[in-house]
Amino acid sequence: MWTLYQFPLCPFSRKVRIALAEKNVDFALELEYPWARSDRLLGLNQAGQTPVLAGEKPGPLVHSQAICEYFEETVEKAPLLGSGSAARAEVRRLTAWFDEKCYAEATNPLLLERMYKRVVLRQPPEARTLRAASQAVALHLDRIEALLGERRWLAGATFSLADVAAFAQLSVADYLGGLGFSGYPDTKQWYSAVKSRPSVRRLLPDRMEGLVPPPHYDKLDF
Amino acid sequence: MWTLYQFPLCPFSRKVRIALAEKNVDFALELEYPWARSDRLLGLNQAGQTPVLAGEKPGPLVHSQAICEYFEETVEKAPLLGSGSAARAEVRRLTAWFDEKCYAEATNPLLLERMYKRVVLRQPPEARTLRAASQAVALHLDRIEALLGERRWLAGATFSLADVAAFAQLSVADYLGGLGFSGYPDTKQWYSAVKSRPSVRRLLPDRMEGLVPPPHYDKLDF
Ligand SMILES: N[C@@H](CCC(=O)N[C@@H](CS)C(=O)NCC(=O)O)C(=O)O
Ligand SMILES: N[C@@H](CCC(=O)N[C@@H](CS)C(=O)NCC(=O)O)C(=O)O
Repeated sequence: MWTLYQFPLCPFSRKVRIALAEKNVDFALELEYPWARSDRLLGLNQAGQTPVLAGEKPGPLVHSQAICEYFEETVEKAPLLGSGSAARAEVRRLTAWFDEKCYAEATNPLLLERMYKRVVLRQPPEARTLRAASQAVALHLDRIEALLGERRWLAGATFSLADVAAFAQLSVADYLGGLGFSGYPDTKQWYSAVKSRPSVRRLLPDRMEGLVPPPHYDKLDF
Repeated sequence: MWTLYQFPLCPFSRKVRIALAEKNVDFALELEYPWARSDRLLGLNQAGQTPVLAGEKPGPLVHSQAICEYFEETVEKAPLLGSGSAARAEVRRLTAWFDEKCYAEATNPLLLERMYKRVVLRQPPEARTLRAASQAVALHLDRIEALLGERRWLAGATFSLADVAAFAQLSVADYLGGLGFSGYPDTKQWYSAVKSRPSVRRLLPDRMEGLVPPPHYDKLDF
């Protein structure tokens, strides 16, 4: 069986967990905190990052997008990149937007201030960074609301890896108390639709040691 | 015809230029500096980033990896992702390594200190950042040298997008005077082999306004 090396608040691990569950690929979970730089993780991935998927051929598979593309190519069930090269280019553009920009501007600063400083460094968060991160969350919600004005799902008419990647980032912000939907009715409805998928419901009970999410975090009616 | 919106020292634009040239896809170049935030670039890509490829259906195509995957799917000539899903996972892992880690740790700091500060801000570079960037370059050369101990090209027996992505990053460092091969004989030979490909030779004469590369930069015998 495959084993995914990950931690509960890693958005890229969430992306892989949801994508694999959509495709009915079974996997076990093993906890790895990248900042602990364990020999096990570094042995699997010289970059020292989560997620890594190992345990079956041709593993270890490294990098969330490489993992998702691998299963898109090898498992027919539940295509997540869309059909046709043009559709796939759009899914990949949006997926990268969330993986790169939403992570760099919103999720990662929130993780640093509200998770890493609290659980690892035992320091208070910096108000200025938190403010900038919440402005970045708002900017990404603006973009999602605009997309959903024209489309049922983020990349078009069908659920795709772009929805998975966006939800992966936003649900980490949500766990850290950094997400609110006031002024974003379409986004709220989209978020709720993603949240109620079986692939997603499975990961909502996960908890990061030492960090409790807000009460609405795993409720379908939030 | 396709038009690529780019600037000479954008490593992701270099990656796309080399990949398209390998595949014999014709394109024109248009200059866009992302920091100028032109309406034209923002109209093509809300993220305000280069590269963007537009002018033909289904453009605009945004994001270097989405562009390369699109042409891998639609142009048979010169496969750059390898054959078989396992090989493609390895190419994608390494490509992402250079696009993300080499850019963040080495190329982008060099671009900031030696290009942006000089050409745009007209400030001197910071010695400490330059030192950290050159340590990062060395770390990436270590990794490349280790890979080439086992493989002819970075991802295996054939030239791939991993070589293109690595060369794209390193050649920008080279232009900025941040690359030396002492202690890296295999890497030097690999770099020279990539540099002599017609797809690469075509972009070496490009110059960034206000910034002259070292004399060896576009020589095949360096
Ligand atoms: N683009 C990579 C990003 C992976 C990543 O940044 N993972 C984080 C945890 S959420 C990490 O390992 N950070 C530690 C580091 O970069 O050294 C992917 O999609 O897999
Ligand atoms: N991952 C993207 C990165 C593109 C990127 O970072 N481009 C730089 C220029 S080299 C840029 O536009 N930076 C300005 C910005 O991010 O605002 C890709 O592969 O296309």
